[in-house]
Amino acid sequence: MKQFFYPKSVAVVGVSASPTNLARAIVYHLEEFNYTGKVYLVGPRGGSYMGHKIYPTILDIPDPVDLAAVLTPAVTLPEIMESCGQKGIKRVVIESAGFSELGDERKGLEEQVIAAARKHSIRFIGPNCIGVINKETGLAVPFMPFRDNFHLGPLSIISQSGGVGGAMLNTLAGEHLGFNKFASIGNKLDTDENDLLEYLLEDPGTEAIFLYLEGIANGRRLMELAFRSSKPILLHNSNTSEASTHIARSHSGSLSAAEEVVDAACHQCGIQRVRDTCSTIRAIKAHSLPPMRGSRLAVVSRSGGHAVIAADAAAKYGFILQPFPEDFLRMVEKHLRAGVIRLGNPMDLGDLFDFEVFRQIVSDTLARGDIDGMLVVVNYNGIFFEDDSRSLVSSIKETSIQAQKPVALCVVTTEEEWRLNRLNHPNFPMFTEPEEAAQALSISRDFFSRRLTTFAEAETFAVDKKGVETILAAAKDRKARQLTTAEAFQILSHYGIPSADWALAKGATEASSQAASLGFPIAMKVMGEGFVHKSDVGGVLLDLKTDVEIRDAYEHLANLIEKTEPGAGESIVLLQEMVPGGHEVFVGAKQDPVFGPVVLSGLGGVYVEIFGDVAIRVAPVAAAEAHEMFAGIRGGKLLQGVRGQPPADLDTLIQVTQRISQLICDFPQILELDVNPLKVFRAGQGCLAVDCRMIIAEDD
Amino acid sequence: MKQFFYPKSVAVVGVSASPTNLARAIVYHLEEFNYTGKVYLVGPRGGSYMGHKIYPTILDIPDPVDLAAVLTPAVTLPEIMESCGQKGIKRVVIESAGFSELGDERKGLEEQVIAAARKHSIRFIGPNCIGVINKETGLAVPFMPFRDNFHLGPLSIISQSGGVGGAMLNTLAGEHLGFNKFASIGNKLDTDENDLLEYLLEDPGTEAIFLYLEGIANGRRLMELAFRSSKPILLHNSNTSEASTHIARSHSGSLSAAEEVVDAACHQCGIQRVRDTCSTIRAIKAHSLPPMRGSRLAVVSRSGGHAVIAADAAAKYGFILQPFPEDFLRMVEKHLRAGVIRLGNPMDLGDLFDFEVFRQIVSDTLARGDIDGMLVVVNYNGIFFEDDSRSLVSSIKETSIQAQKPVALCVVTTEEEWRLNRLNHPNFPMFTEPEEAAQALSISRDFFSRRLTTFAEAETFAVDKKGVETILAAAKDRKARQLTTAEAFQILSHYGIPSADWALAKGATEASSQAASLGFPIAMKVMGEGFVHKSDVGGVLLDLKTDVEIRDAYEHLANLIEKTEPGAGESIVLLQEMVPGGHEVFVGAKQDPVFGPVVLSGLGGVYVEIFGDVAIRVAPVAAAEAHEMFAGIRGGKLLQGVRGQPPADLDTLIQVTQRISQLICDFPQILELDVNPLKVFRAGQGCLAVDCRMIIAEDD
Repeated sequence: MKQFFYPKSVAVVGVSASPTNLARAIVYHLEEFNYTGKVYLVGPRGGSYMGHKIYPTILDIPDPVDLAAVLTPAVTLPEIMESCGQKGIKRVVIESAGFSELGDERKGLEEQVIAAARKHSIRFIGPNCIGVINKETGLAVPFMPFRDNFHLGPLSIISQSGGVGGAMLNTLAGEHLGFNKFASIGNKLDTDENDLLEYLLEDPGTEAIFLYLEGIANGRRLMELAFRSSKPILLHNSNTSEASTHIARSHSGSLSAAEEVVDAACHQCGIQRVRDTCSTIRAIKAHSLPPMRGSRLAVVSRSGGHAVIAADAAAKYGFILQPFPEDFLRMVEKHLRAGVIRLGNPMDLGDLFDFEVFRQIVSDTLARGDIDGMLVVVNYNGIFFEDDSRSLVSSIKETSIQAQKPVALCVVTTEEEWRLNRLNHPNFPMFTEPEEAAQALSISRDFFSRRLTTFAEAETFAVDKKGVETILAAAKDRKARQLTTAEAFQILSHYGIPSADWALAKGATEASSQAASLGFPIAMKVMGEGFVHKSDVGGVLLDLKTDVEIRDAYEHLANLIEKTEPGAGESIVLLQEMVPGGHEVFVGAKQDPVFGPVVLSGLGGVYVEIFGDVAIRVAPVAAAEAHEMFAGIRGGKLLQGVRGQPPADLDTLIQVTQRISQLICDFPQILELDVNPLKVFRAGQGCLAVDCRMIIAEDD
Repeated sequence: MKQFFYPKSVAVVGVSASPTNLARAIVYHLEEFNYTGKVYLVGPRGGSYMGHKIYPTILDIPDPVDLAAVLTPAVTLPEIMESCGQKGIKRVVIESAGFSELGDERKGLEEQVIAAARKHSIRFIGPNCIGVINKETGLAVPFMPFRDNFHLGPLSIISQSGGVGGAMLNTLAGEHLGFNKFASIGNKLDTDENDLLEYLLEDPGTEAIFLYLEGIANGRRLMELAFRSSKPILLHNSNTSEASTHIARSHSGSLSAAEEVVDAACHQCGIQRVRDTCSTIRAIKAHSLPPMRGSRLAVVSRSGGHAVIAADAAAKYGFILQPFPEDFLRMVEKHLRAGVIRLGNPMDLGDLFDFEVFRQIVSDTLARGDIDGMLVVVNYNGIFFEDDSRSLVSSIKETSIQAQKPVALCVVTTEEEWRLNRLNHPNFPMFTEPEEAAQALSISRDFFSRRLTTFAEAETFAVDKKGVETILAAAKDRKARQLTTAEAFQILSHYGIPSADWALAKGATEASSQAASLGFPIAMKVMGEGFVHKSDVGGVLLDLKTDVEIRDAYEHLANLIEKTEPGAGESIVLLQEMVPGGHEVFVGAKQDPVFGPVVLSGLGGVYVEIFGDVAIRVAPVAAAEAHEMFAGIRGGKLLQGVRGQPPADLDTLIQVTQRISQLICDFPQILELDVNPLKVFRAGQGCLAVDCRMIIAEDD
């Protein structure tokens, strides 16, 4: 990927003499950004532009070329890729639109482009993108016009949309925050965000990465990369609503992952999710500060009102306001003018007009071992004390950098003064209000205190995989989409998950004898594909206590089966012991189109239906991760034991979750499974599956 | 209050020849803001400043004075108020600090100031504030220095903190949004936010009001004013955390209401709560647009990526993306350049370069009867099409104002162009991104679709108030803080709320005979003040089925009582029938220090303990409000009947809630009451209180 950003020579393909020719902007940018490599222009009508000759074809260029930036009609691309190959160009940025984002009928064209690239070992970015910028070298090939108002900074950007990525560059310029590398990736036909991310994680110039994606190419690879990243990764994943799906498809051809799975995946691998430009800028600012390595905060403000607001914000984001030492407060008090303010943390310095003392307060506080960072509010109105205030801003910045502890500095002033301060301190973040500052500190703290459990840490249990394969093969043979409850219980059993005792029965007499050997009371359930939600159609009869009840129940279910699946022969029902007590938990799993196997769990019944109290993780999950699932849901408190109840057998529940995780990873053809309820008994007494549903793929 | 804002003459008290004299800034402001009334300066050392003679005392001023702005040491204020009275000045702004915000020992000084004011019928604002500004007339008396970079606009501001209020003025100036009147109210010793709010609601120049408060003076009056306001009221109520309480007290001497009660109160009376400057600005922008009177939205964007983001934002804020008519889409398609984009809502106009057509699309869409407003994204980079884009911005603004429908206009461009557009269109809001624009539209929609139920609409039931008075008087006589369960049940009964049958018993034999007449099974409970949480100490025994169990239970409880309250004589216990079935609900009430009586309700047990699923309202609540309480909590769904369960008797539950509301309003000496559980049976079958707890004030 490095060759996309550090080419020694660039060919711009699609330039013409017409003033509305868009590829001209690419040539303009290479000049505007002071690109020092060689530039060659290509266009069928020849001529020249900005002092460069326009060659009719790529092959006419006399010298070797490292990178081609192409903006020509979509249909010309297969031929142009072929020419690039012949010329020995190994990196191409295809900016042209008109591919699969317009509809599946353009897939053929895309395949031709890929074929030409493969043939010549070309890697390309795009199509339907605005290309790349390397602020270090001045390589800049977007056709969207920019002035180079940008600072060089430690942030690199990967954006699926050129418009959104370009807008982010402008926003960063307005904030006087810089960037290092920028890539717009469009339809991601060859190079995707993971290819670029992998490179940027190694790139010495990049210290943080922002991703804007309308669809995630390979969720698991993204997670694997993020797991081992020490650089903060921010993800704005749009296209999360039904309304946006249509437009995103026609904009960049992207399909979306389940929203809650994206959240879970980001949480697991330490990616920080942002949802709009404003919060993205906050996160970028957060990571432009020295790291916040704990929650112990000191707040100092020149305005009492802002000190109140800062205290609220500190509480909201979970900071601890450490008290200032008494002798320190006495020292500060000596410098107050009117003595009309009482000191504490937050410290209201509205009455302090000695800026040298203000400086001292900040540097002494940062030096304390029990302080992880500061939130400082400097108010001034640009009429009095403006020089003092500006130089206070400078020295607070330097103190923070020297101490390698963050000072989230709010400069509360006029627009004019704000701009001046921003201009004076590029790449050092300033904040407009305590809320923003406290949030930024929390973003930094959350990143630097993250605890990740990688996929590799997931335990593997000894299971009977062959047994499961046999069941799935049989189901496939009869073209089943849903397994019978008996098959599902058997699969669980092969993976070491016990069920409440059960047996099958054909006919009332067999039902009667099976019931007798299982022992009363008994639950009786219909089986078979016709019954996806057995309870809803009256297909589950509970608490049968006598032989008469068993025989009546059998007749009832047999009628129901005959009505639903007429002519299926004598009906088979499942009998199961009734299990008293225990918490009703569910553990499920499914295949996400983007992230692959995921596990879900929570307390059953109203907790999931009404409160949506569900934990999700991308599988496989290790014990620590499964533990965190139950610790993270609200209903998890019930399992720990409330109101004098004994704690539940969490250890076994966690193991069941891991075994389900192993099962869904081992068998991608299991699309969905749901153990619900799983009865969890008190500590040491284990779990029992009471019902289970599994949906399998039509073909694997 | 009008006289504070429209005085014909102002005396500035506390001016001296010293260059560090703060009162000079007041004089400077009257000049800077072009105040046209007469200005008189007062200071004991005389002299002159900015061409004005400094009179040694107020009484030395030769002409009548309407308003005095005072910035002198706190101790001088009683005397200055006396002078003002003698001079016939009826309005005073006291900007001096050093009163009760420093501690209760300054209360005496405050009382002297109040006494002097009362004596001469003076109304005053402050102390510990920065005074008032009337942008209409140029009256501006803050001592905090401002340049008059402000536009005249329809927003007025009441701020408890001068620093926060002043910062808001600067932020508004930066956004090119104006204001009309500004008042900083500090310690609110005489004039409070409600006095000013009442005036501003009538003030023709004010169309929206922003309040920044560190404490609410009189919550019910605030609500009453808001109930009848057709102008949007925004409230930033800070000082909501434990950490801020201390600093707020020393900053403005404020105590705080319970956070969730403030939320409930704002919801009830239509005040829109904001929590930081960023969200305040969004809300102000929202109310600077024509009103959004529904949820039907059209989105048009010059960038596909921003169209995707806008669709996500529209979904997040509950908007419906109305389809564009087919013939309209065909018309637009004719004007596209490359034909590489498919049209829909959101409409991606990245391929449209005819700005006249863009204009037409906006005005045709706003004219449609099935569209309530638009979100429009205009992207440009300030290199090409900058004139076209700027005039597009102008014409979209005009179209929106003409149509009296909102267009939330995102201008996605460089900082330079953004500033230029803001400068060209003061008081018309522009947004930086779709998230911000969609949120603003939702704020407008939520305000204009609010449905309020005023206190006056609350029904009054025929109750036995005298009966309750008798019980409370008896409890007071014995200095009880908590009523016995029996007393609590009796009070409920006087207010028409039935309890499960109960009886008291002294001794095992009486318990036995009472149990027999109530009928088994029986619950038996301890009584008495020593038992606040009866269950937690084993003071409640349930499901007693036989006479032997009753006698054992009595012995057990008698021992418990003897241990807890030794020597109290023979123990009295409460026996109660066990009530099978029904939903366990709680209905509670308490006295909030700021808003007075409030009612709380929700489902009992884990729903409230673990999920915190509670509805709160300031009492009295009308039926519609009580209904909304249960509709608004998640557990409310259970009452409507899920999973084949019949719906609960909501009508009776609502009436019980109203009767509790009436009780807590009638008896301020009941500090807290909690009917928990209240068993709610199926529709038509009523409710029964099963337990009840009431805490009363030490003296009423």
